[in-house]
Amino acid sequence: MPILNKDMTLCISLSARPSNNGTRFHNYLYDQLGLNWIYKAFAPTDLAQAIAGVRGLGIRGCAVSMPYKEDVIALVDEMDPSAKAIDSVNTIVNTDGHLKAYNTDYTAIEQLLKSNAVPAGYSVLVQGAGGMAKATVAALRDAGFTDVTVIARNEKTGRSLAEQYGFRWRAVLDGGTADLIINVTPIGMAGGPESDALSFPQGTIDAAKVVFDVVALPAETPLIKAARAAGKPVITGAEVATIQALEQFVLYTGVRPSREQVHAAEEFMRAQ
Amino acid sequence: MPILNKDMTLCISLSARPSNNGTRFHNYLYDQLGLNWIYKAFAPTDLAQAIAGVRGLGIRGCAVSMPYKEDVIALVDEMDPSAKAIDSVNTIVNTDGHLKAYNTDYTAIEQLLKSNAVPAGYSVLVQGAGGMAKATVAALRDAGFTDVTVIARNEKTGRSLAEQYGFRWRAVLDGGTADLIINVTPIGMAGGPESDALSFPQGTIDAAKVVFDVVALPAETPLIKAARAAGKPVITGAEVATIQALEQFVLYTGVRPSREQVHAAEEFMRAQ
Repeated sequence: MPILNKDMTLCISLSARPSNNGTRFHNYLYDQLGLNWIYKAFAPTDLAQAIAGVRGLGIRGCAVSMPYKEDVIALVDEMDPSAKAIDSVNTIVNTDGHLKAYNTDYTAIEQLLKSNAVPAGYSVLVQGAGGMAKATVAALRDAGFTDVTVIARNEKTGRSLAEQYGFRWRAVLDGGTADLIINVTPIGMAGGPESDALSFPQGTIDAAKVVFDVVALPAETPLIKAARAAGKPVITGAEVATIQALEQFVLYTGVRPSREQVHAAEEFMRAQ
Repeated sequence: MPILNKDMTLCISLSARPSNNGTRFHNYLYDQLGLNWIYKAFAPTDLAQAIAGVRGLGIRGCAVSMPYKEDVIALVDEMDPSAKAIDSVNTIVNTDGHLKAYNTDYTAIEQLLKSNAVPAGYSVLVQGAGGMAKATVAALRDAGFTDVTVIARNEKTGRSLAEQYGFRWRAVLDGGTADLIINVTPIGMAGGPESDALSFPQGTIDAAKVVFDVVALPAETPLIKAARAAGKPVITGAEVATIQALEQFVLYTGVRPSREQVHAAEEFMRAQ
């Protein structure tokens, strides 16, 4: 039985189709850390009214998902560089009515490139131009990568994404290789139409030095499995998802849980 | 540990100084009835933004307390007769973005006059002209009472309250008696400056046929104790508080808990 009380601090998420992940991850950590907080996902009926509610009710934190990540920019008071770099918000922190926007997807990719010590001199292939592509490409640029090619069938989105950050665009991979290969398409995503497909050909995987898949579910996508089989270091979308959620938690609460606590929260989140 | 999930329906309260009562009462009943709902009190920073949030986040129910009961009228879509009768809202129900306002204090007093079979022919003394006085006086009028006197030192509020509902006003009791005597002042309220005081003189209590105290905390006010000692039937403010909360619960959820469940929720609410 949830023994709620009036003094609990509320954090929420706004998404057209909420998952249960944030609600489980954050509430688990609140409990473990003895914080008198609660978290709940919402599918808002109106974004501007929902953000007014964040202010008016004193809701401390607000995660922002599809399709609100860009529309919400006009409704906040301040953009952190992580959100400004990609004109996309996935996190809002409310401090006494002042709403500051962040993008912890960007932060997570930035951290993972650093913690995996991927040299900025590596050539990079980024396949895809959707939601996470901007965070990926901006993080590469800001980490000092210069030899980056965006592969996307759609010329309009692909070329403009690449050129915005000073990189190249190509419509198809066509046997290309690079030191770091990154999948930001939904290929390999559980429940999707291409869940069994490999997002890069075996030859490109074999030629790579590091393989990065932004797809979070499953953690072991066909690409990650093939890369492991080929003995390549991998960075998984599950790592991105955990770090971005953890950074939201830290921004909201000011508390950084231990590695063990984060791992347990991940396990709890997935045990649905 | 609160196992919250994304599908929980949220109800809230808005008050400048929230108590923990609603949060405990409603959450206890949600749990007992197996409803996937949560309830939390808020002290809003801005009423209009908070109500925008009720709409935008799809918050199902919203209790309204001091000092927002009148200001909120301009922000809702429809007034139920219970709220319209006294130009005061303590409950908002959100049905697909349509906000309908109620006053369950009025409903509770109406129900208690009926369930205690207080004859409308009784003469009535209502002492006080504050927040609950309007609900009390309107419920008396709507139940057919005609011989009602409002006792209030403040002529402006006392006289206008009485005359609005077609009743008499007097500044002081001055030894007056009636069949039904009702205290709607804070006299006898726990923690208040007159917590030990008797809100009507013993002679007035002895002459009454029914004694009603709107003060909810403690349930056994000096007036209620004296009335019981004199063998009088009593109606307590604790009954008003429980019925008004129960009627909010029913309006929000469409479910009417059993007497036993309501009693257990009251016990849980008080065991803080």
